[in-house]
Amino acid sequence: MGLEMAPVATESSPEQQPEVAIYPLCRYYFGAKDARPCAGETAADRALRLKANFAARGLRTCVHGVLLVELSGHPHVLLLQVRNSSFLLPGGRLRPAEQDLQGLKRKLSSKLAAEDRNGDHHWQIGECIGMWWRSEFDARPFPYPPPNTRVSKECVKLFLVRLPMARQFVVPRNLKLLAVPLSQIHDNAQVYGPIISAIPNLLSKFSFNVVRD
Amino acid sequence: MGLEMAPVATESSPEQQPEVAIYPLCRYYFGAKDARPCAGETAADRALRLKANFAARGLRTCVHGVLLVELSGHPHVLLLQVRNSSFLLPGGRLRPAEQDLQGLKRKLSSKLAAEDRNGDHHWQIGECIGMWWRSEFDARPFPYPPPNTRVSKECVKLFLVRLPMARQFVVPRNLKLLAVPLSQIHDNAQVYGPIISAIPNLLSKFSFNVVRD
Repeated sequence: MGLEMAPVATESSPEQQPEVAIYPLCRYYFGAKDARPCAGETAADRALRLKANFAARGLRTCVHGVLLVELSGHPHVLLLQVRNSSFLLPGGRLRPAEQDLQGLKRKLSSKLAAEDRNGDHHWQIGECIGMWWRSEFDARPFPYPPPNTRVSKECVKLFLVRLPMARQFVVPRNLKLLAVPLSQIHDNAQVYGPIISAIPNLLSKFSFNVVRD
Repeated sequence: MGLEMAPVATESSPEQQPEVAIYPLCRYYFGAKDARPCAGETAADRALRLKANFAARGLRTCVHGVLLVELSGHPHVLLLQVRNSSFLLPGGRLRPAEQDLQGLKRKLSSKLAAEDRNGDHHWQIGECIGMWWRSEFDARPFPYPPPNTRVSKECVKLFLVRLPMARQFVVPRNLKLLAVPLSQIHDNAQVYGPIISAIPNLLSKFSFNVVRD
């Protein structure tokens, strides 16, 4: 039913800034669902697992969604917070052979929507706005394949997600969903990390159309 | 004659990264032309002039071009250097009522091409990749209209410029043209300023196709 894969903005003419409609935060409803079991994995176990997966399947790809709402006339990004500390964009790792959009829809549903047998929560995924590369799994990500790296281990892709004018978000109890102003995350890698803190740059080419009625 | 306004990349499907062809630095030729007269204006004079212009014409818009070449397998950005210190992107301020693309072509020709009566140097301007806003002329630019600012004083727009596989650049003698690796400008606002240092983020959604033959 819902619109599928309509690009958030069409880049018809370079003279025109692509437009994104954003709606006030009060249009959205927030609920909770059961916490997703955490692996409780140690850093050493994780390193071993990632290494084995890389040997078996090559480059690991993660996809994340940038979801925007309006508050006080300024765009805010929806971020998940884990244990009152680190911030995450909704999304995660693709399964082997899974397509970007298919995987992102699956991840958005698992992090932001009620459990549903049908599983289609009508996510409308727009264009890819940025990609980051890691030369090692514990290395800092760069917005280009690091020079002098023969093979990257991980690629992280960010997609703009176009929200409808109202919807419900249902978030696992072990995560908090927060609307954080662009002005707070901009250039603030210390708190939000190198990827999230670059989102205001990635969005700067868009004109935001705040829809209040 | 030359191709005009062909977008650098068409965003047909969000699943596909837009591609940009870049050519080795050795394909390009560099020459010099007479220095353009510098105003020799004081900061106080500049502030007065900008204030008067804002009162008369409103928002000041600057347009800049991001030109890419390949060196050692890594994309480099062409930057102009003034007096061995500050770095600039080629571009500048629009004239009253001038269109973005028209103004950018005029500025690219004045900074990077031989004097030519016809003035059309076949610049192929692609999409806008970012915009910055200043609430005051001497304020730090932000990649969004600063919250709580009623009227912005200046908007700076960056456009991707698609270079042909060979061409000559002719640069005023008081400027130096440098090819600087993305990895050097990334996150290096101290040296390159907040706008240039964000270019690697803005370009991260593109796949670079290095053409050597």
